[in-house]
Amino acid sequence: MKKNISDKLSEKFIINELLKKLNFNKLGTFNFENDAAYLNTSKYYKTVVTTDTITENIDFFIKDPPESIAQKLVCVNLSDLSAMGSLPKAYTLNLSINSNINIDWLNKFIKRLFFLQKKYNFYLLGGDISKSKELSISATFFGTAKLKYILPQSKCSLDDDIWVTGNLGNSYLGYRILKNSNIKINKKYYDIYKKYYLYPKPCMFGSIASKYITSAIDISDGFYGDLYKVLKNNFGAKINKKNIPISSNLKKIISENKSKIFIDQILSWGDDYQLIFTANKKYKIKINNLAKKNSVKLSKVGSIIKFKGIFDDSMNLIENLSSFDHFS
Amino acid sequence: MKKNISDKLSEKFIINELLKKLNFNKLGTFNFENDAAYLNTSKYYKTVVTTDTITENIDFFIKDPPESIAQKLVCVNLSDLSAMGSLPKAYTLNLSINSNINIDWLNKFIKRLFFLQKKYNFYLLGGDISKSKELSISATFFGTAKLKYILPQSKCSLDDDIWVTGNLGNSYLGYRILKNSNIKINKKYYDIYKKYYLYPKPCMFGSIASKYITSAIDISDGFYGDLYKVLKNNFGAKINKKNIPISSNLKKIISENKSKIFIDQILSWGDDYQLIFTANKKYKIKINNLAKKNSVKLSKVGSIIKFKGIFDDSMNLIENLSSFDHFS
Repeated sequence: MKKNISDKLSEKFIINELLKKLNFNKLGTFNFENDAAYLNTSKYYKTVVTTDTITENIDFFIKDPPESIAQKLVCVNLSDLSAMGSLPKAYTLNLSINSNINIDWLNKFIKRLFFLQKKYNFYLLGGDISKSKELSISATFFGTAKLKYILPQSKCSLDDDIWVTGNLGNSYLGYRILKNSNIKINKKYYDIYKKYYLYPKPCMFGSIASKYITSAIDISDGFYGDLYKVLKNNFGAKINKKNIPISSNLKKIISENKSKIFIDQILSWGDDYQLIFTANKKYKIKINNLAKKNSVKLSKVGSIIKFKGIFDDSMNLIENLSSFDHFS
Repeated sequence: MKKNISDKLSEKFIINELLKKLNFNKLGTFNFENDAAYLNTSKYYKTVVTTDTITENIDFFIKDPPESIAQKLVCVNLSDLSAMGSLPKAYTLNLSINSNINIDWLNKFIKRLFFLQKKYNFYLLGGDISKSKELSISATFFGTAKLKYILPQSKCSLDDDIWVTGNLGNSYLGYRILKNSNIKINKKYYDIYKKYYLYPKPCMFGSIASKYITSAIDISDGFYGDLYKVLKNNFGAKINKKNIPISSNLKKIISENKSKIFIDQILSWGDDYQLIFTANKKYKIKINNLAKKNSVKLSKVGSIIKFKGIFDDSMNLIENLSSFDHFS
């Protein structure tokens, strides 16, 4: 019987039931439970590796600006490297292009890659070019980190602080207004939020603060969903909901668009490329100082507790569990 | 004006005119003129990196056995690592799958990967799974080599011997009989040659003999086409045509299928995954001994000369240039 990817063959099933035997239990693979892995290339420094494929009509649309596609490709990978506590070094690029792609498109795409390579200091190591019906782009990124500062996704300890970088939801609003969801918003904000969605920026704080961090993840499945991955059935979290960073401007737009946008949707959305991380509370000041020095907005949103589950300040179970089955 | 990939946007154009500026002139990229590159990860040992995307209807057909697709994916990449003088260590796998793919297909595909990983000693480091209309698979392979034994594609010297591993053309015959080209062949050979095409094996002699080799390439564009890349407008080659390794069995089948198969076609075909390499002639015996010890068939087919071009024994220019414009 033919089983379709949409029912039985989830990404989670393929990874856990089929692919895991291929990792030969090597340390650097994290048993495929992290968004990146590392190669044991020298005694102290490790090569952190992360890879992603983005495909037309799934991760982007062919009418999206080529610069936006380049930016998202880089952002998703740098964000993974950051969550591992590493800095980018190089990448390989596999372009499968179709007849919609012309020189003008490629020039814009490559110009943005060049800009981002300069900004974040990495270079193109090699690649592959092929034809296909759909535009599809794979990139494998290489980062460097000291072995002892490679960050696991879920090794937090009891009483650790839970931190979030930046603001959540800006990309979500951009997505909604681009989808033409009748959101009431003035022209100035329309452009700003559209840009948040089309040109996301990775938060590289993971490598900056790696020596204080116990666990880190970049938010791809939404705040609660990814926080659950950090807790990994070992711990729970007490969250001060009002500290979850949503800008006052976005809050205002939400209140002006009642019944159209909900906080729950924002907290199930991942394209802000912000990090959740945990750290011993004794490092609170050091972490805040590092954030200030590097102009990174940082919010302490809660702490690790022994009761499993995610609770609010009054220890009510927070019930937004919609994103937990999604695997990416 | 929209330009189509099939006219202006050749792979060569995209690499040379658009992508080269992205390598920041880093040593390990070989200015994108090799089939692999290396990362400077430790002082003596380098991580050699090669990447390939294979796509439905271009590199394989969906009715091909999944084991064959896995074998080709591994073979093309191990062959590139071998041509760089390196041994495989790990790889990442990006699977873009569509609704034609079921668990049975994935099980067969993964079982073959497992078998090849055990055979050639490498593991899966990580990957990415996504949906797409066409089945498309990208893999990035990591090999290790000592820096001084990383093999360039075109650093041969005058009077170097030119060697070829294995036999050429077996895969081509398999392709032709699978294409139903009315080739006269008995059932036993039909199965054997079909297998050569569907289940190619990489020749790992590049890493075995790397300390004697001056230049190496795996044959992907045909014998003469790839030999031209080794010569790279610096030298020429004198080839003893009768030493080009085509098995006596294949020669017999060719003679029984006059006007249907030509030697020229065989020499423009690349899927045998054999190596062309050059070495100082003083190492002839050492190289032959290494080949014997490792059960690798080896043929000395000619030598490097100063006259540019490829000549036969009588210094007649060999005119089979059909494959030289193809870039892969």
